[in-house]
Amino acid sequence: MRHILIIGIGAGNPEHVTIQAINALNKADVLFIPTKGAKKTELAEVRREICARYVTRSDSRTVEFAVPVRQTEGRSYSGSVDDWHESIAAIYEALLLGELGEGQTGAFLVWGDPMLYDSTIRIVERVKGRGHVAFDFEVVPGITSLQALCASHRIPLNLVGKPVEVTTGRRLAESFPDKSETAVVMLDGEQAFQNIDDPDAEIYWGAYLGTPDEIVISGRLADVKEEILRVRAEARQRIGWIMDIYLLRKGADFDE
Amino acid sequence: MRHILIIGIGAGNPEHVTIQAINALNKADVLFIPTKGAKKTELAEVRREICARYVTRSDSRTVEFAVPVRQTEGRSYSGSVDDWHESIAAIYEALLLGELGEGQTGAFLVWGDPMLYDSTIRIVERVKGRGHVAFDFEVVPGITSLQALCASHRIPLNLVGKPVEVTTGRRLAESFPDKSETAVVMLDGEQAFQNIDDPDAEIYWGAYLGTPDEIVISGRLADVKEEILRVRAEARQRIGWIMDIYLLRKGADFDE
Ligand SMILES: C[S@@+](CC[C@H](N)C(=O)[O-])C[C@H]1O[C@@H](n2cnc3c(N)ncnc32)[C@H](O)[C@@H]1O
Ligand SMILES: C[S@@+](CC[C@H](N)C(=O)[O-])C[C@H]1O[C@@H](n2cnc3c(N)ncnc32)[C@H](O)[C@@H]1O
Repeated sequence: MRHILIIGIGAGNPEHVTIQAINALNKADVLFIPTKGAKKTELAEVRREICARYVTRSDSRTVEFAVPVRQTEGRSYSGSVDDWHESIAAIYEALLLGELGEGQTGAFLVWGDPMLYDSTIRIVERVKGRGHVAFDFEVVPGITSLQALCASHRIPLNLVGKPVEVTTGRRLAESFPDKSETAVVMLDGEQAFQNIDDPDAEIYWGAYLGTPDEIVISGRLADVKEEILRVRAEARQRIGWIMDIYLLRKGADFDE
Repeated sequence: MRHILIIGIGAGNPEHVTIQAINALNKADVLFIPTKGAKKTELAEVRREICARYVTRSDSRTVEFAVPVRQTEGRSYSGSVDDWHESIAAIYEALLLGELGEGQTGAFLVWGDPMLYDSTIRIVERVKGRGHVAFDFEVVPGITSLQALCASHRIPLNLVGKPVEVTTGRRLAESFPDKSETAVVMLDGEQAFQNIDDPDAEIYWGAYLGTPDEIVISGRLADVKEEILRVRAEARQRIGWIMDIYLLRKGADFDE
């Protein structure tokens, strides 16, 4: 029996790491670190920095592995994700068989929290389902980008007693402004906020949260839309890639 | 100028605490700890334990303060919350003026993350608005009960590429099962899940997450509803109070 730990490491600031995560990192014989292609080396850098700062046992190893890029051509969204997960599952399986001995523990370091728009848990379940390697697994939560966003803007996520929708750029139009008063948008490659035309909407936007490059902008959407688009494009150009997230809200506390 | 830190301390497990929170705790001259009435002494206990474990400077003080109970009689929900916040703001103001000197730093320890169904940020903004004491403030995120729930059940929050609604027991009927495929329910004094009648709904329930009393139950809602109601009532009776949260889902990954 092998053991797997799926460890949330926070969303950019190495100080997001919890004591529980540090203890888990130190249980691992092998630390698996995904490298997501050349552009996002900064992300792999944060993971390495976390290992360097917090891993105190000296007998564990780090194994970096490349994550394949999702093939979208000629496929539906979910078909392409399904194939992609299958190919990552094969990689994980090979890592568990090749890098971990019986009874050993391997850790996957996951950006933010493994529960939030991340597929490590699903892929580990898939590896289990393939039946070629026996293991148990545990999940350790981590600070998400959504939390980093609210903390940097010093705002509550929800209005008093009200619900919140967490969604993606692709789906924003289905929820805000009609269905929900607060929507948090992640994974938005299209800046879907620019299509929201509601004079009461406020936006709280953040990029590279928790990192030295952090940028935050907030205000009435109609007033700051153009500024966000400009700042985002400039930063993306300068840094080579971008991670951003935002909260859209209309209404106020104590509106019934 | 005084300084205020609003620090998320995690949702029950003292190991949820982040390095950022530990550093913030050690910046504070005074640590403010709410005591929420006799029944929930365990909560104040976790806060004290966190201070004992992680506060390494020896010259800071702890100040406990009682939080008044919300008066609901003859008032609307938001009217009663508004009055309640105002009376807590007066308490905070007195604490800042009475317990902190000019230039000193005070920390409010908040259960979970300050952004999630918690009013510390709003109340601190109110104190600012009253204009009797000048201060700046910062927010430090913490692991939420929602994350503890997903980690204990080892599940993703969202289906692949799909949205999630975070809501309260009072409002569950407005969202699940019609409006959302995944709903997370907090602050539910009525066990609103018992009114959901959908043969496809699954529930992932957890109480006292992260604490030695943690209980988790999951399954088809129709199959485990009665068990959850029974286990919940028993635990509440035995322990004297309960904190619980659950995720409801229908549908699966890769359904379009
Ligand atoms: C694949 S999801 C992973 C989310 C992650 N598991 C979490 O808990 O935050 C990636 C998305 O998260 C958001 N994100 C992650 N880290 C971020 C950061 N430091 N600043 C801004 N957005 C971030 C962006 O919306 C990005 O498109
Ligand atoms: C006033 S809200 C505070 C939430 C907190 N700020 C957080 O981040 O989790 C209280 C609600 O949080 C949930 N909760 C908090 N801690 C919990 C725990 N350890 N186990 C289960 N539910 C919890 C319950 O739904 C409870 O009604």
